[in-house]
Parts: sequence; structure tokens; C-alpha cells
Amino acid sequence: MVAIGDELLNGRTRDANVYYLAGWLEERGVALQEVRFVADEEEAIVEAVNALRRRADIVFTSGGIGPTHDDITADAIGTAFGVPVAEREDSLAILEEWYAKKGEEVTDSRRRMARVPSGARLIANSISGAPGFAIENVYVMAGVPAIFEAMLAAADQEIQRGPTYTVYTVIGAGGESTIAEGLKAVESAIKGLKIGSYPGKSGTSGRLAIVCKAFDPALAVQGAKAVEGLFRAKGVDPETVEGFGPNLT
Amino acid sequence: MVAIGDELLNGRTRDANVYYLAGWLEERGVALQEVRFVADEEEAIVEAVNALRRRADIVFTSGGIGPTHDDITADAIGTAFGVPVAEREDSLAILEEWYAKKGEEVTDSRRRMARVPSGARLIANSISGAPGFAIENVYVMAGVPAIFEAMLAAADQEIQRGPTYTVYTVIGAGGESTIAEGLKAVESAIKGLKIGSYPGKSGTSGRLAIVCKAFDPALAVQGAKAVEGLFRAKGVDPETVEGFGPNLT
Repeated sequence: MVAIGDELLNGRTRDANVYYLAGWLEERGVALQEVRFVADEEEAIVEAVNALRRRADIVFTSGGIGPTHDDITADAIGTAFGVPVAEREDSLAILEEWYAKKGEEVTDSRRRMARVPSGARLIANSISGAPGFAIENVYVMAGVPAIFEAMLAAADQEIQRGPTYTVYTVIGAGGESTIAEGLKAVESAIKGLKIGSYPGKSGTSGRLAIVCKAFDPALAVQGAKAVEGLFRAKGVDPETVEGFGPNLT
Repeated sequence: MVAIGDELLNGRTRDANVYYLAGWLEERGVALQEVRFVADEEEAIVEAVNALRRRADIVFTSGGIGPTHDDITADAIGTAFGVPVAEREDSLAILEEWYAKKGEEVTDSRRRMARVPSGARLIANSISGAPGFAIENVYVMAGVPAIFEAMLAAADQEIQRGPTYTVYTVIGAGGESTIAEGLKAVESAIKGLKIGSYPGKSGTSGRLAIVCKAFDPALAVQGAKAVEGLFRAKGVDPETVEGFGPNLT
């Protein structure tokens, strides 16, 4: 994924789309490999998109496809693919219909949103009309979270699913180093099991969340039971929940 | 910045450190140029760190320096710089003192946290003891937000400050395209002024936040007044606040 926007880099906005996309892809059995945040600068966008589209099956971008002068993503994507960017009839028709329903006009700045790189497929936008687009394996979507999410839903049928993980989280008192030594042994012993260790606090005392995941549900259960055993050996009574469990702070 | 951790890419954890660092750097007049999120995999960490440390004055990393087997950041940084990673006496002494105060032992897994790349400077950790480290222009810090923030504070004196922006945000009713046409003209007319446009909603109606920033406070004020004029020309009564203003959702 490439998250585009000066506001993500200057402290104005806390990105929400990476987290949403990560969970959405996980549910579909697709691994998010890498994310880059870049400014609204053509060179930075082109470099990031070209680097990731060559190594990943799919690239998603967020941001920079609105009507204002700092929205340069469509042009940057055109540059990245070496194709022209021009207004398209079908995209303009969508804008005209959307604004006509609101009794508003397609101003020159709104009309900019009908410009897409040659060869792109449009992605429907049920929230604010102006479509996103996909070109080859790059999905170009809005940065406003509600619109990003709607466009992702619209593109869902094009996403090839993979096997999904079964996940259990075992939570217990103590710091990360309490059971660190046993975790490696458990992960080594159960082939196909992945373990993640996430320390945090509950009030003033340390809490630890251990995530056990595997494609085979039986292995995930087996891993969670082994981790429960590690906690109990330290005199801690753990709690196991399905899924990623709570984020400790 | 390089944010390291499988949990950021699989939907378990919503990163908080990028947003914190971005605002922290902005206050110090330092521009955050790019962020990459990578998994707990040596090759991915090495590639991202090496790419960014050559083009940026400073690189910050978060995550992967704890006591568990999936914490591989110190080794990856050693590989990135081509230097050995070994336990250091001063780092081990810090751990011993920290755990002695708590009446606990430095177990083998805790002891792993005393391993740092050759030539690194330690970064104090007032929250959980185990230090981060810096090597050349790369600052390697924990992923837990409270610890990340404490390490950033400890490294503060090494960060060279730049000129800071004065920022005003003008907020008014309407969608982004309402005044988009005027914004480009204002930005062109006032040299040194940067304008960002952030649409969102307030209840069910569209709201628009226009950020005006400049190194010269007078230009930021002049920009905000010009943007207020654009809103008023559309019959909208805008509100101006100092700083980045609220994030609309």
C-alpha cells in the first residue's frame, strides 16, 4: 500500500486506512507486505508505486484524488505507468449524474476528478460520487476513510482470496520477558504455527498478549494451549480469546 | 521512519508512532519525508533502513527490540550497516540495575536486549529499562508507544532543529470542490504559503478544513484571510483556528 498525503507526514492527520486495509486483507487471506507513506509530490508517488507494483500482486493507494490543486495522484499514476491522463466520458457522466441529483454543477475543479490514466478501470464511490480507478494491479482510492472503505468494497470482487488464518490470543499478567524463553520452543515444536508477542499494561501492572496463528485451526488451538502452559508455569492464570484480542496500551 | 512489526500489517495493531513522530518533528521544524511499514523480516528491514538512511538526514525505527524471538531489529540493523551485533557491558549494566530494583533477574531473553550493533550509542528508556540505540543517523526505538515517546524525548538533544511553520486552519461548510478553484490562485499569489485542503463531515453535512502554513507568520495570516474570503464569496461563514485544527471525519 502507498498512503499519499502531506497531512500524514506533518502531524495533522493520523492515518486510518492502513489499519483498515490490513484487517480487510487478513480476512481475505491476503498478506499486506509493505506500506509507504509519501507526500503529495509526483516524484515520491511515482517511485513508491513503481517499486511496490513490481514486487506485489496488488498495490492499493489512498489519497490525492480529490478536486483541489494538491490532488496530483492521478497524474503521478499516469507517469508511473507511462500513459496519458485525460478526462473520460464515463467518469464525467458519473460526476454529472451525482451532482445533478444534488442540484449542483460539475465545476471545473470537480471535473478534474474525471481525469484518469489511459487504460484504467473505474472504482465506484457510493459516498461522494467521484470514482477511484485501477490500472493493472494498482488500485487508486480516496484518502477520506469512509470513501476509502467504500471503494475497497467496490473492488472486493477483483481481489483473489487466499487461505485464512485461525487466530487465538492468550493474555496474562507479566512483562514480555516472563515467558519469552518458552515461546521460541513452542513455535519451533509446532510446525505451521506463528507466534507474536505484544507487551502492554493493564492499569499499572504489565500484561502480555501472545498471538498464536496457523492456517490449520487445530495447530492454532494447540499453540494457544502450549502458551497457556507457559503462563501457568510462572504462576499466572491466562485468558484466551479468539482473534487478535485487545491491544494493550 | 521505518515502522517494524507484523502486527502493523495483519490488522492487529493500529500504529500510533508515525502520527506522534510526525507532530514531534513538525514542532521542531523537521520534515518527515517518508514512512515505511515492514514485517519482522531481516531482508525487509535491511532494505528499508538502507534506502532511507542514504536519502534522509535522520531515520527513526520503531519496533522489534524486545526480549522475544520475533524481535530481530538489532540484528537487522547490524546487517544493514555491515557491523557485528554483540552484548555490551554498559547496556547489560542498565538492565541489571533496572531489574535489580524490581527484585527480578536478567533472564537470558532479557539479556538479549543488551545486544546492540558495534559503534551504536544507547538511548535511555525511562519506561521499561532496556535502551534503544542510534548508529550513525539511524535511531532504533521500541514499538510500544509510551516507550517510543520516552526514547524520542531522550534523543531530543541530538535532533537539529529547523525553521517552524506558522499554521492556521480555516473551516467552513461545503464540499472540497466548493472553493477548490480559488485555492490554487491564493497559493500562487502568496509566495511561501502552502495550502492543504481536507474535506470531511460534520453530522450529515460537508465541512472543509483549509490549512494555510508558512514560515513567515504574516504570510500564514494573509493566506487564512484570503481563504476566509473564498468561503464568504460562496455565502459561507468560516471559522479560523491556529494550528492544524480538528480532523473532520
